[in-house]
Amino acid sequence: MRLAELSERSGVSTATIKYYLREGLLTPGRQINTTTAEYDEEHLRRLRLIRAMIQVGRVPVATVKEVLGHVDDDSLPRAIRLGAAMWALPQVPEPDQDDEYVQAAHQEVSALLDQLGWENAKQLTTISPAYRSLVVAVAAFRRLGYGFGAELLAPYAELMHRTAVLDLDNMETYPSQAERIEFAILGAILNEPVLQALHRLAQEEESTRRYGFDE
Amino acid sequence: MRLAELSERSGVSTATIKYYLREGLLTPGRQINTTTAEYDEEHLRRLRLIRAMIQVGRVPVATVKEVLGHVDDDSLPRAIRLGAAMWALPQVPEPDQDDEYVQAAHQEVSALLDQLGWENAKQLTTISPAYRSLVVAVAAFRRLGYGFGAELLAPYAELMHRTAVLDLDNMETYPSQAERIEFAILGAILNEPVLQALHRLAQEEESTRRYGFDE
Repeated sequence: MRLAELSERSGVSTATIKYYLREGLLTPGRQINTTTAEYDEEHLRRLRLIRAMIQVGRVPVATVKEVLGHVDDDSLPRAIRLGAAMWALPQVPEPDQDDEYVQAAHQEVSALLDQLGWENAKQLTTISPAYRSLVVAVAAFRRLGYGFGAELLAPYAELMHRTAVLDLDNMETYPSQAERIEFAILGAILNEPVLQALHRLAQEEESTRRYGFDE
Repeated sequence: MRLAELSERSGVSTATIKYYLREGLLTPGRQINTTTAEYDEEHLRRLRLIRAMIQVGRVPVATVKEVLGHVDDDSLPRAIRLGAAMWALPQVPEPDQDDEYVQAAHQEVSALLDQLGWENAKQLTTISPAYRSLVVAVAAFRRLGYGFGAELLAPYAELMHRTAVLDLDNMETYPSQAERIEFAILGAILNEPVLQALHRLAQEEESTRRYGFDE
């Protein structure tokens, strides 16, 4: 397809597509003559992914370029390609290690991982932004005077593990490695609002089932 | 306890506590003499909740007042007191009903609720912000060219329902109705970052289990 059709099918303006081409986010089309290039379905798919990251995920253009660089690097092992893509997305800042609440949260999260037997997460700890986010969130609870220990967290962690199994099962239905990694990035950006909405809806459903409206 | 102790134990400055008292977010202490008032554990608990809503949840003071008004209104049925508190928290804006993606998302979410047998959620639809959030999130997927139908959503919804059952079971361990509703509000503000972090950590764990680092 030509640039005009790529623009129409992706909903991205030709000026913006040209900008993405200049920035190297999108690989050039096949040059037909000096003024015309031909684009394919892979360009369209990639363009949708870029748009999801920038418009929905609010990921800066430089970061998008970095993420796509990892996605396209066949020399990296699969878990690293997946992880690197995820880790390039917006993350919580490094928690203050001198803070007493952060220290207590570290211990709680560590005890949780032991209890769950999540050996890989346990090994990744310091380099994983997800681990860091969990420490920050648990520390925020403690700072407000609420404990949130391993016993309380473990059943939630088991349910989130089953959610992650679903994520990866869905990802594996895609035939190519490139599509799978794209799906993982999209999941990180778009799944979370869906899960949050489903969780709140389930709370309403369960709460009306238990308490009704007439008590 | 006196104001100074309430301030020390809550981590909220005396000036801010006086501001909350003036605004009616906090009920006055028991007046001992013209210049001194006595506060109790309930003041401390309420102060922590206010701080969580304002500092962590970024809820405006006027909204906090509205939420606490519902929490304290014994004349309302329990599900409404819970719901009103939750619904006063920041929500996604009303989706554009003329948008074709929003219309398609409405149909998908409606089919999902039928499949799940969530009768209460189905009845609440138009007045529930959680339903609205789900429609907005599914419409965002569709707008980017990705389908997210009831078959894909249903297993996620089942896991989120089990998560909501845990939420309410934990809530019911609190003896008083006031504490339960406070716990529900805190959950809405603080649980979501914890769940999100657990989900990402579980994805890392599962992905390294499946693919390792050397492929």
